[in-house]
Amino acid sequence: MHLDLVEVKVDPEKMDEETTVEVKVDDEASTDSKRHQVVSPPYKSCLQQFSTKLKETFFPDDPLRQFKGQPLNRRVILGAQYFFPVLQWAPNYSIKLFKSDLISGLTIASLAIPQGISYAKLANLPPILGLYSSFVPPLIYVILGSSMDLAVGPVSIASLVLGSMLAEEVSPTAQPDLFLQLALTSTFFAGLFQAALGVLRLGFIIDFLSKAILIGFMGGSAVIVALQQLKGLLGIVHFTKKMSVVPVLTSVFENKDEWSWQTVLMAVSFLALLLGARHISLKNPKLFWVSAGAPLVSVVISTIVSFAIKAPHHGISIIGKLPKGVNPPTAHKLLFHGSHLGVIIKTGLITGILSLTEGIAVGRTFAAIRNYKVDGNKEMMAMGIMNMVGSTTSCYVTTGSFSRSAINHNAGARTAMSNAVLSVTVLVTLLFLMPLFEYTPNVILGAIMVAAVIGLIDIPAAYLIWKLDKYDFVVMLTAFFGVIFISVQLGLALAVGVSVFRILLQITRPKTLMLGNIPGTNIYRNIHHYEEATRVPGFLILSIEAPINFANINYLNDRILRWVEDEEATFKDNLRLQYVVLEMSAVSAIDTSGVSLFKDLKSTLTVKSIELVLVDPIADVIEKLQKAKDAKEFIQSDYLFLTVEEAVTSLSSTMKSITSNMPKEEAQPVVTEYFVV
Amino acid sequence: MHLDLVEVKVDPEKMDEETTVEVKVDDEASTDSKRHQVVSPPYKSCLQQFSTKLKETFFPDDPLRQFKGQPLNRRVILGAQYFFPVLQWAPNYSIKLFKSDLISGLTIASLAIPQGISYAKLANLPPILGLYSSFVPPLIYVILGSSMDLAVGPVSIASLVLGSMLAEEVSPTAQPDLFLQLALTSTFFAGLFQAALGVLRLGFIIDFLSKAILIGFMGGSAVIVALQQLKGLLGIVHFTKKMSVVPVLTSVFENKDEWSWQTVLMAVSFLALLLGARHISLKNPKLFWVSAGAPLVSVVISTIVSFAIKAPHHGISIIGKLPKGVNPPTAHKLLFHGSHLGVIIKTGLITGILSLTEGIAVGRTFAAIRNYKVDGNKEMMAMGIMNMVGSTTSCYVTTGSFSRSAINHNAGARTAMSNAVLSVTVLVTLLFLMPLFEYTPNVILGAIMVAAVIGLIDIPAAYLIWKLDKYDFVVMLTAFFGVIFISVQLGLALAVGVSVFRILLQITRPKTLMLGNIPGTNIYRNIHHYEEATRVPGFLILSIEAPINFANINYLNDRILRWVEDEEATFKDNLRLQYVVLEMSAVSAIDTSGVSLFKDLKSTLTVKSIELVLVDPIADVIEKLQKAKDAKEFIQSDYLFLTVEEAVTSLSSTMKSITSNMPKEEAQPVVTEYFVV
Repeated sequence: MHLDLVEVKVDPEKMDEETTVEVKVDDEASTDSKRHQVVSPPYKSCLQQFSTKLKETFFPDDPLRQFKGQPLNRRVILGAQYFFPVLQWAPNYSIKLFKSDLISGLTIASLAIPQGISYAKLANLPPILGLYSSFVPPLIYVILGSSMDLAVGPVSIASLVLGSMLAEEVSPTAQPDLFLQLALTSTFFAGLFQAALGVLRLGFIIDFLSKAILIGFMGGSAVIVALQQLKGLLGIVHFTKKMSVVPVLTSVFENKDEWSWQTVLMAVSFLALLLGARHISLKNPKLFWVSAGAPLVSVVISTIVSFAIKAPHHGISIIGKLPKGVNPPTAHKLLFHGSHLGVIIKTGLITGILSLTEGIAVGRTFAAIRNYKVDGNKEMMAMGIMNMVGSTTSCYVTTGSFSRSAINHNAGARTAMSNAVLSVTVLVTLLFLMPLFEYTPNVILGAIMVAAVIGLIDIPAAYLIWKLDKYDFVVMLTAFFGVIFISVQLGLALAVGVSVFRILLQITRPKTLMLGNIPGTNIYRNIHHYEEATRVPGFLILSIEAPINFANINYLNDRILRWVEDEEATFKDNLRLQYVVLEMSAVSAIDTSGVSLFKDLKSTLTVKSIELVLVDPIADVIEKLQKAKDAKEFIQSDYLFLTVEEAVTSLSSTMKSITSNMPKEEAQPVVTEYFVV
Repeated sequence: MHLDLVEVKVDPEKMDEETTVEVKVDDEASTDSKRHQVVSPPYKSCLQQFSTKLKETFFPDDPLRQFKGQPLNRRVILGAQYFFPVLQWAPNYSIKLFKSDLISGLTIASLAIPQGISYAKLANLPPILGLYSSFVPPLIYVILGSSMDLAVGPVSIASLVLGSMLAEEVSPTAQPDLFLQLALTSTFFAGLFQAALGVLRLGFIIDFLSKAILIGFMGGSAVIVALQQLKGLLGIVHFTKKMSVVPVLTSVFENKDEWSWQTVLMAVSFLALLLGARHISLKNPKLFWVSAGAPLVSVVISTIVSFAIKAPHHGISIIGKLPKGVNPPTAHKLLFHGSHLGVIIKTGLITGILSLTEGIAVGRTFAAIRNYKVDGNKEMMAMGIMNMVGSTTSCYVTTGSFSRSAINHNAGARTAMSNAVLSVTVLVTLLFLMPLFEYTPNVILGAIMVAAVIGLIDIPAAYLIWKLDKYDFVVMLTAFFGVIFISVQLGLALAVGVSVFRILLQITRPKTLMLGNIPGTNIYRNIHHYEEATRVPGFLILSIEAPINFANINYLNDRILRWVEDEEATFKDNLRLQYVVLEMSAVSAIDTSGVSLFKDLKSTLTVKSIELVLVDPIADVIEKLQKAKDAKEFIQSDYLFLTVEEAVTSLSSTMKSITSNMPKEEAQPVVTEYFVV
């Protein structure tokens, strides 16, 4: 679209009068010169709007959709299947599926048993709790869970956080019984909190733990966990109870005399074995069973060696006698009063969120790979109930584990039944095999843990984040260094704070793009991006890229007026600026302050004899603008268009050819607002 | 644009093969059928991007712009004018301007003197401090301030907050000297904080106090202030020290026996006089001087009456002797250590923000009316210095007052010189007229305060907010009830929390609009808004109305897939869904999580044999998408268009005519990620 400008000499004394000059518009490009009205959206009552908004906020997945138009008995079945996903797959379960699940179940059991014992130690709990926690929760998940790949049990990060937060309150060595009570009660609250998030459909809270945060956080946790293992790997007896890097390293080097060479030798050999196995599986993913089996093999070999050489005589500490039998009930141990309740609830809340995040992320990953759906809110309820029941049967916080779920998937799991196989295997172990672990050296547990958490340090992912988004990289570093130098929970909180600050900054400083016409078309795009885009003389076309609200109206007002002033300077010797066109399609919402922005802009621009033109505001925005008090002043149908092209075409035809702006000397108006004496 | 659909029978066994059918496109509407490439934005180094972002965030007003291309001596002058705005207007100051300023200065002085005394009492400070605070700060503002209309001095809300926050720490009656020290030090910190916000260009922090919050907050404060006056108006001696509604009303009715009819009579008469005067000025804004003069007239009359009848003998309390002379220096009274420092800093911070908000809002309002500019950051520095200096000269927190600035403007003030006139008038009063106030009854101060704050309750504004935006109304109510039932600072914090929650909710639950073609044009708009807009068969066109980031990728993924499923159901017997077109022009930013959304969407859609098409992503978004690891998988130039029209036109021509989607039975892939044993 081109404008044939007509230069006109204007008598300076008549400068203020409106000298309207017809400007010819080249018709080649614009075929649809007939104008399309911006209409008000269809009427919706206040209640309708509210219920729509409520639905989009809390029920975006529309869970009742599948019930629509179904007969009653079908609805009952669907309802039962909704609450017990096992009913969806159990009716079609076959021997063939069971074979797959049996193999994968046994595979993850071989990993879950040594890992369970190790993670319980990480949480400062008796090792047997790791096995208890691998028995009951998987059974519950079989019935309630909607993921087909998740392998449920204790995980490293939740164990670390639980252990470290509670150890600040009660010493696990001085008061082991009280510590156990705290851990079980925290587990109960974690479950309660998870189930509540699911029921209240507030699952989006875990979205605030972004990928960048998780990568930094997991890396930091891995460092902390690995450093904690130095106690076991070096055979140190007197070790700090603190978690962060500085005291741990100090403790390691101050107790050099306690290092035991036999322990170190054993640690190095088995670490080499485990990391070697991991390396093989990484190189060739089909050999996943190598790394899956390595921990159990290590436990067996090291136990035999330890038994043969009578390890305790050589300064190698062993697990010792473990009680035989299934989970004892612990409902009576839950503590719902007393001075520790605050810490218990806080610990439950944080471990609950962390384990949810891990479990749901894992569930979603595999659901995406196998193309089925995992309902976040339903998973939260499942995990919540699993943990609440767990807390009454000697289990501490459990969730779907990253590593074991991957093994489960790769070993061919087809349904949640593999968790049942895992559970039965653990049961057999608990009933009959416990005496075998008596001579298992503690050092091997440390080695298994180090090999497990080393994969949490994801350097390639960190590099990708650096490449993609520098701010996310800062968020990641905040989480990483926060965790290793301050504490797990504070590091996490800091990183979330930094991420939310960025969102607020984006709202407070929204983008405004200056649009120009791409020659030969009716397309208008950012002139700083598309270099061929050219400005239309007499027009300033801006696209606002954010909702307009209290947090940004002052900025937008300043920024738009700066564009206008720049423009006035540029076009000094040319056609003067007559229209400021705001392209509003990206303005997704507006509040009362936002409405006042248009009022203010309109009045400032009127003084400069510039018209404010709005293009394509969305339904909600139109509605609010129309409801404003002096709406007709700043939202006139003459200056409201559906596309930039139509605005330019239509307004060009009545363009005034004046070469400079001359605001009139204003009389001082009397103010009636703020008249507050 | 119309598609002439060609129905084709497809052999069910060949369903999976790509049966490509040419679909004729009606050429009438689309003239520019040649396609325009989405290009990468011009290259900018990481440092350039960072500095641009920094500038847009902290220097959106580009303060150095005016210095560009100026000779050195001009730059020096501009620099001096920047820091001392008085230099901008003083050189052209004339007798004529002074006449206007003199009249307005005397008018506001007549109001500032009685109000100053009242506000100091509200802050639990000696009345004389109100006068001190109306002498020094206005003088400083003349030199540093950039508003021509602001009348500087103590204001009701900051006085209330200062008084109530500090009274929780130290009793103003038991330890008046310590209380004064706390107040002065808080004033110093308020100033320091204000100046720091200006220097660090963090002024946008006050934007978070939205209009809705301010209306609710001011209304609540007015109720609190008015209730506090019941002590003076009823002549009660024993009164609660608490601020919130319940204890105050309890205290009023429990001490009924202390009510003094003489005091009540006086209160009622003068309240009637003041409110009557206010009513006259509201009806006829030209008679603004009626309400401006009423407080001074009331003080004069009541003092004469009180002197004549020897008021104290009739149970009417009087101000008593006030010290004569100018502000004593108080730098030595500032407390920078000790146990009260925490409360002092907190009080300084909150009163600092509140008084900034009032001062800047007032400054902006009048600047907009008279069409000059007030620089927010400069104003913050001016007010900060004013309060810091004030704290060393017996002044407590001051700012530009809503009410007195309106009077100042209406009385014809032309420059900040009217503040100098105010200051000199107060000086004269301090030096010579103090004895005249000895017999002024306290009840009159209460009446002046009630008349002053009643205007802060803005029912029409509250109604307008209700009409415009229900959520803002909730925010307003939160502030109002929070202030009157909990406390001033907590009510404010709650309301800010509720507003920020809304912003986060908008980001977490972004709008997605389904677009349709407006017949006969190449325009695509929301089909739920423009009823004539029709869907294009085979296409699902969605516009995403928010930045895509960690907080909303899960929601967007679910929501888009729900649209797709709905669409698949709708088009069952028709042309099947083949393209999901995402209109991205409103996506103003994207982070690493956002990039993964496209990856996930792409892989889910591929299983359904649907192509993902992106339209008009903005520069930043293109850059980030291109940097992603498997970028070429989900951002192919074949499926990247500049406009929806071009995407539809271009893709329609190769549309496959298949009537239903048949995803292939997928093989279970082996997972290499999360391989963490």
